[in-house]
Amino acid sequence: MIAPIFRRVTLIGLLLSAIGVSAQNLADRLGYPPGTKLIIVHADDLGETHAVNAAAIKALESGTINSASLMVPCPWFPEMADYAKTHPDADFGLHLTLTSERIYYRWGPVASTDRVPSLVDSNGYFHHDWEPRQQIDAKQVEIELRAQVERALAMGVRPTHLDSHQYRLIMSGKDLFEAMLRVAHSYKLPIFVTRDWFEEHPYLQASLGPNDIVLDHTVTIGPEVPPEKWADFYLTAIRNLKPGVTEFVIHPGYDDEEERAATRERSTWGAAWRQRDFDFFTSEQFRQVLAEQKIKLITWRELARPATSK
Amino acid sequence: MIAPIFRRVTLIGLLLSAIGVSAQNLADRLGYPPGTKLIIVHADDLGETHAVNAAAIKALESGTINSASLMVPCPWFPEMADYAKTHPDADFGLHLTLTSERIYYRWGPVASTDRVPSLVDSNGYFHHDWEPRQQIDAKQVEIELRAQVERALAMGVRPTHLDSHQYRLIMSGKDLFEAMLRVAHSYKLPIFVTRDWFEEHPYLQASLGPNDIVLDHTVTIGPEVPPEKWADFYLTAIRNLKPGVTEFVIHPGYDDEEERAATRERSTWGAAWRQRDFDFFTSEQFRQVLAEQKIKLITWRELARPATSK
Repeated sequence: MIAPIFRRVTLIGLLLSAIGVSAQNLADRLGYPPGTKLIIVHADDLGETHAVNAAAIKALESGTINSASLMVPCPWFPEMADYAKTHPDADFGLHLTLTSERIYYRWGPVASTDRVPSLVDSNGYFHHDWEPRQQIDAKQVEIELRAQVERALAMGVRPTHLDSHQYRLIMSGKDLFEAMLRVAHSYKLPIFVTRDWFEEHPYLQASLGPNDIVLDHTVTIGPEVPPEKWADFYLTAIRNLKPGVTEFVIHPGYDDEEERAATRERSTWGAAWRQRDFDFFTSEQFRQVLAEQKIKLITWRELARPATSK
Repeated sequence: MIAPIFRRVTLIGLLLSAIGVSAQNLADRLGYPPGTKLIIVHADDLGETHAVNAAAIKALESGTINSASLMVPCPWFPEMADYAKTHPDADFGLHLTLTSERIYYRWGPVASTDRVPSLVDSNGYFHHDWEPRQQIDAKQVEIELRAQVERALAMGVRPTHLDSHQYRLIMSGKDLFEAMLRVAHSYKLPIFVTRDWFEEHPYLQASLGPNDIVLDHTVTIGPEVPPEKWADFYLTAIRNLKPGVTEFVIHPGYDDEEERAATRERSTWGAAWRQRDFDFFTSEQFRQVLAEQKIKLITWRELARPATSK
């Protein structure tokens, strides 16, 4: 809950931000006391497999993960849409998906394939990967993103935010980012962007408007962290958290037959990886370090409230 | 292997069959001695889930299941396409699929949705079911069937036969059956039809040509059989097998997390059902009864040989 006095502060913050003079972080602009550290513990890839859905639901219900996003084109999306309908307070965004990156288990676009030919391979699936020379058509991207949002809405999901699977819409240039941004504005949804990315991708900052929410930081684990250092990585990140709003982008899942089979061609974001994320973020150790560091949890629902109430 | 003398007999058999005077069964026409009992032990639904793929591969490799068909539109089809490429002697057909009958786990057409609007629901998935008043357009069916065959070929599958998921193309009238038959003829593939169905659906016999292979009988278990009678049902069917070629249409799968979640809204063809099929058809009891009853195994590859060599 944000008290009325903070709403005024928020508007001033947004105004200052808009004219480029603000050194405030998003927590300040939301009206929190200086130095406040807020995190979104955000599970990605829901809908991709049942093993991911089941683990994410368990983690959400245990209260340590408080936000997630759903992959609409994936075969297990209906399971999450059903859950979202019966849990309308859950903080679910849409994990806009334009790739089908595995080998033995695949999916394709929501839009009619004829309308998005640059997004699909010769078999009609989304590309495994985008080769540097591949021409991904921004208009087709926008068609597909709108189709994903429309399917989610039609199936009863009320998303709180949009983000991008594999950061494709963030890291692939101004045209694709602006396609995502247009869709976000159409549906009055915030998108997951952080200031951390502005230096490498200046078009992000250039394209964003004064009313767009920008997170301060993000933390995500990478393949350079060995399995035995998993908890250490997260504990260190939490103990060194900067003030402002940080999204932890995590990938919980169960290391079971389905997930092992679906991800078996490589270990990055594979079944064991996802089990390690599940284990850490549902651990007592994680709860304790949050309390010890006086870190507060926040969701996209709370972040979006000032923006959508304008 | 069929000896040359039998090939001649086969041609005579086909000729007699064509002019409608034959009381021969398919085993006779293939040149087997009178009274020979042949079965195809055929696993359906490969590609639907990993639990089905893994169980079917295990059963195929144990040697008691000798044929199967693949659902091209399903998310786990690529796993089976990969297996088929590396096991070119396996007897894999295509399980032509026009429905997405589950609730929490779904798929849609291979053809561009715009080209097959009568086959999809408002969310772009294949219909759960075909309501009596639903207009399924036969031209669109043919477009989709060709797209399924083309994707399979492009992904390295060399199918030995075609059959129809949930018998939709068999039981839904002459127009849809003839669409399937045109596709089968185009690709020179036999389709799974048995004489058992002619009385209820006379258009089957009327549409089939003299060169089309027609099996004699089929056995499949139904929801009226209680779980504890599963083996009894199959043992009775095997002990009462009639001469000719009979296809056992079975649904092996593992009763694991994925399959339970994918099928949880109803038990028919659910996870426990599929585990029971897997258990019976990989049992020593099944091997013994085949030997005791002097039943031979045959595959679509062997059935199709005379037809495709003409």
